Amino acid sequence: MAKPIEYRDAAPEVRAVFDDIKRTRKVEDVNNFWKYLANDPTTLKRTWQSIKEIMAPGALDPLTKEMIYLAVSVTNGCAYCIASHTAAARKAGMNEAMFGEVMAVTGMANETNRLANGYRVPVDPAFEP
Amino acid sequence: MAKPIEYRDAAPEVRAVFDDIKRTRKVEDVNNFWKYLANDPTTLKRTWQSIKEIMAPGALDPLTKEMIYLAVSVTNGCAYCIASHTAAARKAGMNEAMFGEVMAVTGMANETNRLANGYRVPVDPAFEP
Amino acid sequence: MAKPIEYRDAAPEVRAVFDDIKRTRKVEDVNNFWKYLANDPTTLKRTWQSIKEIMAPGALDPLTKEMIYLAVSVTNGCAYCIASHTAAARKAGMNEAMFGEVMAVTGMANETNRLANGYRVPVDPAFEP
Amino acid sequence: MAKPIEYRDAAPEVRAVFDDIKRTRKVEDVNNFWKYLANDPTTLKRTWQSIKEIMAPGALDPLTKEMIYLAVSVTNGCAYCIASHTAAARKAGMNEAMFGEVMAVTGMANETNRLANGYRVPVDPAFEP
Amino acid sequence: MAKPIEYRDAAPEVRAVFDDIKRTRKVEDVNNFWKYLANDPTTLKRTWQSIKEIMAPGALDPLTKEMIYLAVSVTNGCAYCIASHTAAARKAGMNEAMFGEVMAVTGMANETNRLANGYRVPVDPAFEP
Amino acid sequence: MAKPIEYRDAAPEVRAVFDDIKRTRKVEDVNNFWKYLANDPTTLKRTWQSIKEIMAPGALDPLTKEMIYLAVSVTNGCAYCIASHTAAARKAGMNEAMFGEVMAVTGMANETNRLANGYRVPVDPAFEP
Repeated sequence: MAKPIEYRDAAPEVRAVFDDIKRTRKVEDVNNFWKYLANDPTTLKRTWQSIKEIMAPGALDPLTKEMIYLAVSVTNGCAYCIASHTAAARKAGMNEAMFGEVMAVTGMANETNRLANGYRVPVDPAFEP
Repeated sequence: MAKPIEYRDAAPEVRAVFDDIKRTRKVEDVNNFWKYLANDPTTLKRTWQSIKEIMAPGALDPLTKEMIYLAVSVTNGCAYCIASHTAAARKAGMNEAMFGEVMAVTGMANETNRLANGYRVPVDPAFEP
Repeated sequence: MAKPIEYRDAAPEVRAVFDDIKRTRKVEDVNNFWKYLANDPTTLKRTWQSIKEIMAPGALDPLTKEMIYLAVSVTNGCAYCIASHTAAARKAGMNEAMFGEVMAVTGMANETNRLANGYRVPVDPAFEP
Repeated sequence: MAKPIEYRDAAPEVRAVFDDIKRTRKVEDVNNFWKYLANDPTTLKRTWQSIKEIMAPGALDPLTKEMIYLAVSVTNGCAYCIASHTAAARKAGMNEAMFGEVMAVTGMANETNRLANGYRVPVDPAFEP
Repeated sequence: MAKPIEYRDAAPEVRAVFDDIKRTRKVEDVNNFWKYLANDPTTLKRTWQSIKEIMAPGALDPLTKEMIYLAVSVTNGCAYCIASHTAAARKAGMNEAMFGEVMAVTGMANETNRLANGYRVPVDPAFEP
Repeated sequence: MAKPIEYRDAAPEVRAVFDDIKRTRKVEDVNNFWKYLANDPTTLKRTWQSIKEIMAPGALDPLTKEMIYLAVSVTNGCAYCIASHTAAARKAGMNEAMFGEVMAVTGMANETNRLANGYRVPVDPAFEP
């Protein structure tokens, strides 16, 4: 069973990733997610580099990205991810009212996705490529 | 099999919903989704009222809401919803770069949701209620 | 790529399953689902025996079972299954109003499943084993 | 982090919804689901009104609706919803044998949904609109 | 609420299945999964027979089958199944490095599944039947 | 709407990725998936680098990895991914019998995942970390 790897027990390549996470996010320690991924240093490094690239400010601001991340995690029912990305979104500026609206939109999208499936609605010509 | 109901064939209660959709969204006709839901006027009316309330500007702007709607639809693999909400998000201001970032975040969230599941990562105490 | 296997080209063990499906369901030919599964006679036989046992009248009537089958298929977005189980449910007695209510319940369940996830609602003590 | 809102601490608009839930369901207190949704009174009110409308007796009886709700919740793996809708279905009359059959149908549907996906089975012409 | 059924309290038909599981898997007791399914002896027997047939060595070896089982369970987020099939895969020979690669492939597949959905990528003619 | 980008119209950074895909996989042209991702060169490059790293021979051979990829794609119902990874797995050595077993295991895992959810089976102490 995978166990979390703490900084003090980590190999240099893992420590390098942990250090970059702490520096980038200005935190004192990394989350459990990273401590467990550290069991596979290749996956740890690739995942962090990907997330670092994807979540950086770009055409969308970090808060919008975190709220999208949360909506996906809620849709998939990933308990860990819901907890950690709710925290991340709040840190990025999501207040109570915004959280409520992310939930409302996520819930509604999950409902209408099934109504469209069940009624077998064909794509409107206007939406075709 | 459910068939689409066109305005000219619709009962007054259905026409009233279609009229409100057209007025609210400033469109000349409603999408197939609504024409199919019209087979069940109660569901048509309730779904429209819910969406109208949820997607109105609030703590989040309409563009952010449409991008969250799209991210959920992509996660669920609802082909109709992906097509219609990509169009809706573009209408609300999503450009190519923003679309690319919504996809990147959605893809990554789906990946890390499974890594967290598979490594059985426990929620960090800091993320507990 | 798997191709459908027609009765005339089928091995005796496949024909035996096809015959039982036709006899049990009182149909002249089997659906595409069975013609494709016939590429793996072991899976064909096991799947048919399981479905025959599960969908037979028991504590629940066949119509209720077909509507549950449809609700699951809609939730998973399986286009083939939605089409075939809508047909099967109609054959078992589902009328337009009942179809509308299956869709409404399925849609709502998908919505509240996500609201419960997102708000991280703990199970009420009364619902614990 | 969202916290449950008890009746004694609730605003009048929240109390009005709680009162209607208690009256409609003939219960002394509302479930945790509603206490958490109460953090967003608009979503609380809309969700309750939708559920009240959808779950009322109609073309389908309340027990059938609750079993469909349960099947969807099991498919999505929503732990809270499985617990609460198992309780609701039992209250509506689901006995052990019926529960067993809901599970059997739900499990089988999830299996054949994937077999249909994997074998890329095309929809039979008879099932087309 | 379903409760686990222990061997000493089990009916003969349930004991027969438990005995076969223990004999086939060379274990002293069956997992909780089987003790809960024992509430519905028909489902218990059918599920065990199906799994016994499917997981036996065939064109694929047991380890490969267990890793596929794990990948599906991780994708669906079934906590019980992730725990039990991680254990089963390890027993069948999955080491740390293999576990890491199953997770990496599973995560990536979940990501690119959504990228393909979101970009609405049409199937290449070469992949058509 | 995203359109596929052909090699002749691609920017140098996109061509570099296309060239590496063609060289690594020994193919004359890249699949539609890559032509669509090319609309976002950053995502194209990151996704290819990740897949190249993950799918390379390691503790698991390429065929096993492709079959896991297929099982996940089937579970998620991604039509494009099912088509392309069935092709990729066949190219890596998956024959008809192996395909049949991947489908059987994937279907069964999806079934028992829901049985475990629905019966609310607690994790056996032996499977706890």
